[in-house]
Amino acid sequence: MNEPKFLQTLAGTRFPTPPIWLMRQAGRYLPEYRAVRTATPSFLELCYTPEKAVEVTLQPIRRFGFDAAIIFSDILVVPDALGQKLWFAEGEGPKLEALAEPADFAKLARARLPEHLAPVYEAIRLTRAALPRQTALLGFAGAPFTLACYMIEGGGSRDFAKVKGWAYRHPDSFSLLIDLLVDAIVDHLALQVEAGADAIQLFDTWAGILPEEQLFGWSLEPMVRIAHGLRARHPKVPIIAFPRAIGPATLMYRRPDAFSALSIDTGLGAHWAARELQPHICLQGNLDPLMLVAGGAALEREATRILDKLGHGPFIFNLGHGVVPQTPPEHVAQLVEIVRNWKPSNT
Amino acid sequence: MNEPKFLQTLAGTRFPTPPIWLMRQAGRYLPEYRAVRTATPSFLELCYTPEKAVEVTLQPIRRFGFDAAIIFSDILVVPDALGQKLWFAEGEGPKLEALAEPADFAKLARARLPEHLAPVYEAIRLTRAALPRQTALLGFAGAPFTLACYMIEGGGSRDFAKVKGWAYRHPDSFSLLIDLLVDAIVDHLALQVEAGADAIQLFDTWAGILPEEQLFGWSLEPMVRIAHGLRARHPKVPIIAFPRAIGPATLMYRRPDAFSALSIDTGLGAHWAARELQPHICLQGNLDPLMLVAGGAALEREATRILDKLGHGPFIFNLGHGVVPQTPPEHVAQLVEIVRNWKPSNT
Repeated sequence: MNEPKFLQTLAGTRFPTPPIWLMRQAGRYLPEYRAVRTATPSFLELCYTPEKAVEVTLQPIRRFGFDAAIIFSDILVVPDALGQKLWFAEGEGPKLEALAEPADFAKLARARLPEHLAPVYEAIRLTRAALPRQTALLGFAGAPFTLACYMIEGGGSRDFAKVKGWAYRHPDSFSLLIDLLVDAIVDHLALQVEAGADAIQLFDTWAGILPEEQLFGWSLEPMVRIAHGLRARHPKVPIIAFPRAIGPATLMYRRPDAFSALSIDTGLGAHWAARELQPHICLQGNLDPLMLVAGGAALEREATRILDKLGHGPFIFNLGHGVVPQTPPEHVAQLVEIVRNWKPSNT
Repeated sequence: MNEPKFLQTLAGTRFPTPPIWLMRQAGRYLPEYRAVRTATPSFLELCYTPEKAVEVTLQPIRRFGFDAAIIFSDILVVPDALGQKLWFAEGEGPKLEALAEPADFAKLARARLPEHLAPVYEAIRLTRAALPRQTALLGFAGAPFTLACYMIEGGGSRDFAKVKGWAYRHPDSFSLLIDLLVDAIVDHLALQVEAGADAIQLFDTWAGILPEEQLFGWSLEPMVRIAHGLRARHPKVPIIAFPRAIGPATLMYRRPDAFSALSIDTGLGAHWAARELQPHICLQGNLDPLMLVAGGAALEREATRILDKLGHGPFIFNLGHGVVPQTPPEHVAQLVEIVRNWKPSNT
């Protein structure tokens, strides 16, 4: 039997219509997810209970038949595994005991990671066994800069004053944290691949807050090192990079030595991306998640516009960011139908 | 006597070093501002009391000798003047009685604007009279899309679900709101120019949340109409457009028929901007406000990097976003010195 369409696309094969999956496709917009979540004391426990993580990973595949599943987990399991206290305050997002000075790095221990995250790898093993063969399974991790943001801010932030204050004033010690995270992330990704993940996505959610020189040093360069490190252990695994909201700096990320595809956010115009990026690398994206809330004619028009711009090249249909909780599931079904029924024009 | 360096730069003259001013240069980081603010019952009253608005507008000019002052006001005085209830909740940002349906547009009356905003125009008259002749005075307004965001969300937002829900599902009625705002903003800008503003900045703070087609229709096109409308009344007034965080879509805003300069955010790399934008139009930007918090060698290095990339073309030094409250005023003095002592290289 052939490889999944999703993996063939990442390897360069074109199909009449692109494969589709959605960031945060397993989540609160699905009633079956909410049922599992309310029966589980905490979000982290959902991530660390393999049968539950498997169940919510499979739910959107059963409903919509996406071309890829992504293991249900969180980018912050890495700092958690390194020993930084993490909890999810209801309705407030993630909280961590913030790193306040370089001495705090001593609390972080990479050696703990494989055992601490064993439930994640077990969930991947079980999911891969349960998934249809034509459905690819994605593992993932947060990129070092994005993890460093959460680890120094102690959660989300409006202006990222703490992490920038540290990084700008003390670039040497900040680089030590980035280096430590590069190694831990390579471990985490390699273990996901060994458990059965077919491909990897690296999320640099906060890359867009950096000026270009710092973006190069703290986002791109570490992500390339991770890709090379992972490939040293697993030479063929496809890697999708998602440096969010970085605009024209995305040009620097056309690195086929490191990345198989780039995921682009809604703010990056499909027209520009088709011209400047797609001739060099497979793209993934970039429907506005709020279009999926709108549904109807607006969704049809906008999804078709993206397909007409990007569907002719190597392309994976996705959103520009994650599915939002208020999304009606029937709009997701509508989107899958639009993508699968799209007819490429002859131009 | 010559025109201010700031205005000559907007008209195309090059100087050995660029003019400098900073977005939100009048604000909480200055102790003399906090003294005036605490003696005033509300933020809006500060905007609407001419002597106080003049005083805080002049404070950063006295301290730092910037090349331009910007009248102390707020982009939300326009919805306030149109009749939408506005208040500033302490520590929470602006709140408005949100527009919930097209019928609510009937509450908005453009005719009220000149009288309601008379204190703003009076403050401009007094400031222009008090300013040194070599210091330009900027008036400003929020662009229609950004005002529509606040007017429909009822304040700031994380995902802009309400405004996008409306705009995507009911583009026709959303366009009516945009049209109404275009007319009101032209009035407000023309009255600022008549009161003594030497140039205008249009802030489209939330443009970056839109996909490219909607960006064209709801950000660029209305801003161009405003520029043409204002120029019909005041043919020579320079207009700076600031469509924030729109990445490569900034290419569409190279419109010398409408804008004299583009203000760019920190996320838009100076290298790309120098190559793609500056040959066509004067640029303004784009130091990270958090670099101004860091100060010292980091500030020196980053400001010099921006000057080396952009200082050779038509350029106004500024931040990529507003000054943040925790900025030490002495770092602002350091920045002014760096900019004024910069030596262009021969390349």
